[in-house]
Amino acid sequence: MPQTRSGSVTNFDAWKHAYASRAANLSVSEVRALFAVVSRPEVVSLAGGMPDVSALDSDLIEKAFLSMMASKKNYALQYGGGQGDLRLREQIQEIMALDGVHGSVEDITITTGSQHGLELVADLFLDAGDVVLVEAPSYVGAVGIFRHKEAHIEHVFTDEQGISPEALVEAADRLRAEGKKIKLLYVVPNFANPSGVTLSAERRARVLEICKERGILIVEDNPYGLLYFDQKPPAAIASLDSENVVYLGSFSKILSPGLRVGYVLAPPAIREKLVLANESAILSPASFAQMLVSEYLSISDWQGQIETFRQLYKTKRDAALEALTQYLPRIETTVPAGGFFLWLTLPEGLNSKEMLPLAVNELVAYTPGTAFYGDGRGANNIRVCFSHPSAENVKVGIKRLSNVVNLQLDLLDTFSSKD
Amino acid sequence: MPQTRSGSVTNFDAWKHAYASRAANLSVSEVRALFAVVSRPEVVSLAGGMPDVSALDSDLIEKAFLSMMASKKNYALQYGGGQGDLRLREQIQEIMALDGVHGSVEDITITTGSQHGLELVADLFLDAGDVVLVEAPSYVGAVGIFRHKEAHIEHVFTDEQGISPEALVEAADRLRAEGKKIKLLYVVPNFANPSGVTLSAERRARVLEICKERGILIVEDNPYGLLYFDQKPPAAIASLDSENVVYLGSFSKILSPGLRVGYVLAPPAIREKLVLANESAILSPASFAQMLVSEYLSISDWQGQIETFRQLYKTKRDAALEALTQYLPRIETTVPAGGFFLWLTLPEGLNSKEMLPLAVNELVAYTPGTAFYGDGRGANNIRVCFSHPSAENVKVGIKRLSNVVNLQLDLLDTFSSKD
Repeated sequence: MPQTRSGSVTNFDAWKHAYASRAANLSVSEVRALFAVVSRPEVVSLAGGMPDVSALDSDLIEKAFLSMMASKKNYALQYGGGQGDLRLREQIQEIMALDGVHGSVEDITITTGSQHGLELVADLFLDAGDVVLVEAPSYVGAVGIFRHKEAHIEHVFTDEQGISPEALVEAADRLRAEGKKIKLLYVVPNFANPSGVTLSAERRARVLEICKERGILIVEDNPYGLLYFDQKPPAAIASLDSENVVYLGSFSKILSPGLRVGYVLAPPAIREKLVLANESAILSPASFAQMLVSEYLSISDWQGQIETFRQLYKTKRDAALEALTQYLPRIETTVPAGGFFLWLTLPEGLNSKEMLPLAVNELVAYTPGTAFYGDGRGANNIRVCFSHPSAENVKVGIKRLSNVVNLQLDLLDTFSSKD
Repeated sequence: MPQTRSGSVTNFDAWKHAYASRAANLSVSEVRALFAVVSRPEVVSLAGGMPDVSALDSDLIEKAFLSMMASKKNYALQYGGGQGDLRLREQIQEIMALDGVHGSVEDITITTGSQHGLELVADLFLDAGDVVLVEAPSYVGAVGIFRHKEAHIEHVFTDEQGISPEALVEAADRLRAEGKKIKLLYVVPNFANPSGVTLSAERRARVLEICKERGILIVEDNPYGLLYFDQKPPAAIASLDSENVVYLGSFSKILSPGLRVGYVLAPPAIREKLVLANESAILSPASFAQMLVSEYLSISDWQGQIETFRQLYKTKRDAALEALTQYLPRIETTVPAGGFFLWLTLPEGLNSKEMLPLAVNELVAYTPGTAFYGDGRGANNIRVCFSHPSAENVKVGIKRLSNVVNLQLDLLDTFSSKD
């Protein structure tokens, strides 16, 4: 596809005059470009954000499929209700309870991955110019959705304990004083994408309090919560409050992203609108995928499978940290206690986006930090995703990355010493 | 779920102040209420719009699944690209060619059912107040999407040859003179939902010409084109022009709606934006469902399966027409040459929405005509969907419907004669 480097389109467009205002905010995502890179087998991809589905027991998926076809074929192949299957929602209740969240099956809506849950929530709340508060950095797919809704995206200072309550108060009060409508706080409290950090229990309570006082709805996105390495993260914010939090969950990381099954727990009035929005957008979530997940949950030791994933990703995280110590000792990194990601901070003066072609030339890919900001920050950050390659390849990838980074550091040192 | 009769929400809503402007346009769809009714086994549902998936050969689906798991398991369970799988797009090319449409695989985007294709197109083009021209009546799911985008929906006079070119010119020129921006014409040219009528070949060419002259993009929705009863419908509008038409297709009616796999063929510049919008909304279409469809197409006699559907639905259509002649001889009906629907026009003074509870009491359900208009028209129309019940039950349903209608007609006659 012919594109300029900035992602603008070179195809002649006879309909340029006709697009809606929001269409101008669609841009080529950096994640997308990386899907192309990752498909070259010689490249070690630390980009992506993909689970290691090869660790799934495919016999169980076949068993679930055959059981579904034997007992629910005509249901699985047909349209369903807009809210999603009741039995699956009951099973989701059990899964959410593992994160401390106790919601009614009536308040769960099943979505096409949790991405579409976020899209529906954003569409429900955001007029052009409304403010969404997010972590610094924040999930690239969320930033993309909020940008598409023409929202004002405000990154709030975040450290190794997660988003800062003081910075949240400052940002909210400043933006309100400017006359802006602050609609949502979007957070990934557990093993965040991209930073890998976890919001502390104390801050969860404080963040909730701050948002409640100011009438800001919290959108809590929790795809990684069950993938902890040593101990469970603190209970979800949604466990503390059922009226001020919309909670997003997903089967993408504990089962398979290829099925596109996620869910949203929302207060009743919001949930009613979400179901209508879901119906408007897709008529009904895929019965087939829902039934398959539901059968899988009922016939398999799915918690055992999650334990397998935990051990696997922990081994890969350890490999990443070990290689970083060995090959990139001067580079700052977060130390995630679960999930898929760690976040590198390069010395000022290095640009991770400009460095990417050099890295691909060394046969390693990553996601540049700018992808996770709506405001151009992140130029000296790198997201390393350790979940998909083997532990051995994680090390190989980081070694290759070090060749590029260390060369850049040498150049920077040389350049600086000339001043 | 507690709701008033008008579909407004009785749950107290603490977030009422926070919704986006467009959220006010989400209302409980009449299709949705009918999904609840249809689930009672004693009710014959002529509502829905559901294919008869029991006529699918489930052995073939099992075979496709096992073949996919054997050769593409890790691909099917993983995230994919935002445009959809290349091999499936090649297969879609062959399917579109059966309707005369010859598009590049590069210009096909795979979507979560064609409903989401329409949602993405609408989102790309419609600012609040923009005009969408549609048939009178038009597909309820499309009307819902356009309403959600805060568009002005203009129904254009439609007869048994489809949408009227003269009325189209009149509406377009009148609305433009009023200063409105006319963005889209949305049409279902083959065996339309809900009317069952087919746009004539002459009108297809004329409608294209009218829209081209005026810079109006045609959105051609063709879920039923391959389900003709005797002879193929005229070639698709998209076969006449590749720059002025966005073409929507679906596997929901020729395979299964439970998979949620549809597609959009669009001019390159529009397609680029569609892929970005698809990625923003759902990251990537479900690899699992795409691979299953692709395997099914490659291992099965899928055209033979479509022929089975054609014969089945023709038998059901005939049963419907026979029962209408027998039990409701005074009621006007369209005579569809394919698809799922026929459209009844009751004498003025009868109200199909008010009659629905009486019909459900007689154990038959249908969709009231008002669902297919954005402007309150259709009060004396009924959509009969004959695709899902058995031919025998189609007759039983229409007989039950006649009990209600004939009683209403008697009351109307009595009332009229008293004047």
